[in-house]
Amino acid sequence: MARVEQTIAHRHVLASQQFDPRLIQRLFVRAEELQLTLDDPRKHQKLGNLLAGRLMFTIFYEPSTRTRISFAAAGQHLGMQVIATENAREFSSAAKGETIEDTIRVLCQYRPDVIVLRHHETGAAERAAKVSTVPILNAGDGTGQHPTQALLDLYTIQQEAGRLDNLKVVIGGDLAHGRTARSLVYLLAKFPSNEIIFTSPESLKMNRDIIRYLKRRGMSYSETADYRTALKDADVVYWTRIQKERFEGAGTIEPFVIGAGELKLMKKDAVLLHPLPRVDEITTEVDNDPRSAYFRQAGNGMFIRMALIEWTLGLL
Amino acid sequence: MARVEQTIAHRHVLASQQFDPRLIQRLFVRAEELQLTLDDPRKHQKLGNLLAGRLMFTIFYEPSTRTRISFAAAGQHLGMQVIATENAREFSSAAKGETIEDTIRVLCQYRPDVIVLRHHETGAAERAAKVSTVPILNAGDGTGQHPTQALLDLYTIQQEAGRLDNLKVVIGGDLAHGRTARSLVYLLAKFPSNEIIFTSPESLKMNRDIIRYLKRRGMSYSETADYRTALKDADVVYWTRIQKERFEGAGTIEPFVIGAGELKLMKKDAVLLHPLPRVDEITTEVDNDPRSAYFRQAGNGMFIRMALIEWTLGLL
Amino acid sequence: MARVEQTIAHRHVLASQQFDPRLIQRLFVRAEELQLTLDDPRKHQKLGNLLAGRLMFTIFYEPSTRTRISFAAAGQHLGMQVIATENAREFSSAAKGETIEDTIRVLCQYRPDVIVLRHHETGAAERAAKVSTVPILNAGDGTGQHPTQALLDLYTIQQEAGRLDNLKVVIGGDLAHGRTARSLVYLLAKFPSNEIIFTSPESLKMNRDIIRYLKRRGMSYSETADYRTALKDADVVYWTRIQKERFEGAGTIEPFVIGAGELKLMKKDAVLLHPLPRVDEITTEVDNDPRSAYFRQAGNGMFIRMALIEWTLGLL
Repeated sequence: MARVEQTIAHRHVLASQQFDPRLIQRLFVRAEELQLTLDDPRKHQKLGNLLAGRLMFTIFYEPSTRTRISFAAAGQHLGMQVIATENAREFSSAAKGETIEDTIRVLCQYRPDVIVLRHHETGAAERAAKVSTVPILNAGDGTGQHPTQALLDLYTIQQEAGRLDNLKVVIGGDLAHGRTARSLVYLLAKFPSNEIIFTSPESLKMNRDIIRYLKRRGMSYSETADYRTALKDADVVYWTRIQKERFEGAGTIEPFVIGAGELKLMKKDAVLLHPLPRVDEITTEVDNDPRSAYFRQAGNGMFIRMALIEWTLGLL
Repeated sequence: MARVEQTIAHRHVLASQQFDPRLIQRLFVRAEELQLTLDDPRKHQKLGNLLAGRLMFTIFYEPSTRTRISFAAAGQHLGMQVIATENAREFSSAAKGETIEDTIRVLCQYRPDVIVLRHHETGAAERAAKVSTVPILNAGDGTGQHPTQALLDLYTIQQEAGRLDNLKVVIGGDLAHGRTARSLVYLLAKFPSNEIIFTSPESLKMNRDIIRYLKRRGMSYSETADYRTALKDADVVYWTRIQKERFEGAGTIEPFVIGAGELKLMKKDAVLLHPLPRVDEITTEVDNDPRSAYFRQAGNGMFIRMALIEWTLGLL
Repeated sequence: MARVEQTIAHRHVLASQQFDPRLIQRLFVRAEELQLTLDDPRKHQKLGNLLAGRLMFTIFYEPSTRTRISFAAAGQHLGMQVIATENAREFSSAAKGETIEDTIRVLCQYRPDVIVLRHHETGAAERAAKVSTVPILNAGDGTGQHPTQALLDLYTIQQEAGRLDNLKVVIGGDLAHGRTARSLVYLLAKFPSNEIIFTSPESLKMNRDIIRYLKRRGMSYSETADYRTALKDADVVYWTRIQKERFEGAGTIEPFVIGAGELKLMKKDAVLLHPLPRVDEITTEVDNDPRSAYFRQAGNGMFIRMALIEWTLGLL
């Protein structure tokens, strides 16, 4: 019983801030290596031996099919087995009033090697980690953290722009409600000489805590509602969705849409990102432009998750 | 990245009409071979090496537990890993307005080997195939196609009746709303000298487009509401469910039920099929009659799907 | 086809009463062996060869995430593949009126090696077993049986108390509605010289059929509403939840809670069990007391299920 009851200091993935630039680089090197191996038909099969016989639980208290499938595929490409629940909130002991701590304690008794947790309450992943005897990978907890999304955004910038410093990054759309935009700002601030240009309707501006944070760090930033002008100098454009009901009260009739016309304004080697799903804030006519990197970005998420799984298990 | 972005002409399974008699025979030979191997305890284990390390996604926008389990079992008996979602419509980016094309593009980034798709909209599988970098297997799209069901029906006729031509086939029940009956007619028309007898309440007759199709092809057919007489000469009886609410307006008090009495009318080597689930249109008292083939028919679905998976991957 | 249509006398797990003390001991020896092997990093990997290539279906007509994950993990640690449905009642042919017998007949056609069944109707597992060509493991059917829960409770008593006879066992909480308490009584009655003390609010007393059963067997028992006094002499305390809405009508204002104070009353080598989930009837302050065995108890469930899977397959 020793293995289960002894509390070891585990490597959990809880918040994007826990990773310093050095570890980030190590993860990114490994993610790229994993991608090259998986996409090489001659080496592909070997990946499946790396974590053969290991077990992943994906425990989702709210649905997020894409994130769940991405984690499961990450595990299975490495040879893991996966046990999933799609909607633990409705379908489980949680409905009877069980705490997340008790749930995690019980799940650990079933001897998984890692637990991927998506929860509707901020801080749930950290509470889980406190009692877990295996690594917890936070797949989003409420309005709190979604660290693997933040890392995959940064990884995609490195892959597509070739660097993580000296970048002009335009972040646009609904900045008041988007978790991904906030996390990206924190991560970009860890690397030198980046400049951030926020562009959004007046009523959907980035919250002041982030602005104060940038000021404290002495990082260059600006804010504008004129997104087309902002696009012109950007090395990276990170675009997000404005939900219709929010837009209508936004005091503007200009839709924040990137189409063929807007792409023409952008630099030839710019990178266009989006956390997806998109509705119509990027038109499909630009999907095949080499600068449009949002589908590759989604795929990068899986490779980052593969690298993180290895790291939590002490293999990286 | 080449593997993902290069669009290759894939083998998709989209519609039952895409298969010509020669390919159908190749699939049927392989399906039978797979069944014999799986049911042989000495050879059973080897099957699992055929597609070891390959990954299947089963993406179901509407629930169809039986079809989903059948595809998953088909993949797993061949050694594949399976990642499933039971109700993608409610639980995913689709709820946020994402198109099926975007969803498929993202899923392909997670490097599955095949995607099994069930969707509520007619034509969804074809739209998916247009952007997919891996084979799409249509597990039913709206009122459109369900090609693996159609093929398993035909395969069962060959297995049970020993041939696909020169057959008198009675198709009965609710012909106005049943997709399976329609597909079967199209497939039977590809083989020579088959004759079809439709039997249904007057208000639930087969749609006229199918009747016109049979006339154009010069295929023998007839229609009758007297199902008991129709059963007498049949080589094959394909029976379907009449939903109660439809029956009541059907202008008849005669229930379309096959029981012990009806089976006595049938030929000794006739074959009784049903796509299942059945409610009471075939009574359980005839389940053990050797002519009752509907449970074997369900099992045949898995073997057809195994053969189709191999075919989409270029292994057949 | 012979394999499927021939009805063989299978080993099903349907009811806790089906196991005699000798078989129970054999299962417990194997469960412990499996636990030691799984928790030994040098032997861990070998377990996965035992049932490699075998297939488990977990068919749940009502959600029970914990039981489902426990069975799936049991199978996967032994090397099995698992195909799951979380909510078959809503999502399947059952919604169209299909009987459990037909569903099982079809599922068997997909060649699983075992079917784990959770159903909302009492007796469903037995009906399933009558038509199944593979072993059925009952994961709870309505208000009827949940045999693996009963066995894991008994196993935990043996593991923690060191024996299954000569025990004073306090069973407390809502005894009128708890299935687990009833099953435990039946199993304890199979071993000599056990004494049972029931403690509950007056209105939630154990049903008279159990009391009559104990009288018939000449087994010692008593009933009391004074749970604190009852705790003092107990070798084993089996505590259950009282749902709030039931408690309010229970004619008492005393909450049936075990906390630090109550634990002080208990013997130093007593064992405190709970089927989980708990809400506040055992306070978290006693979780780390060595007598608190409820999380280990949950884990034991998986090892019992592993042993039972082996037994149903004729490997034990």
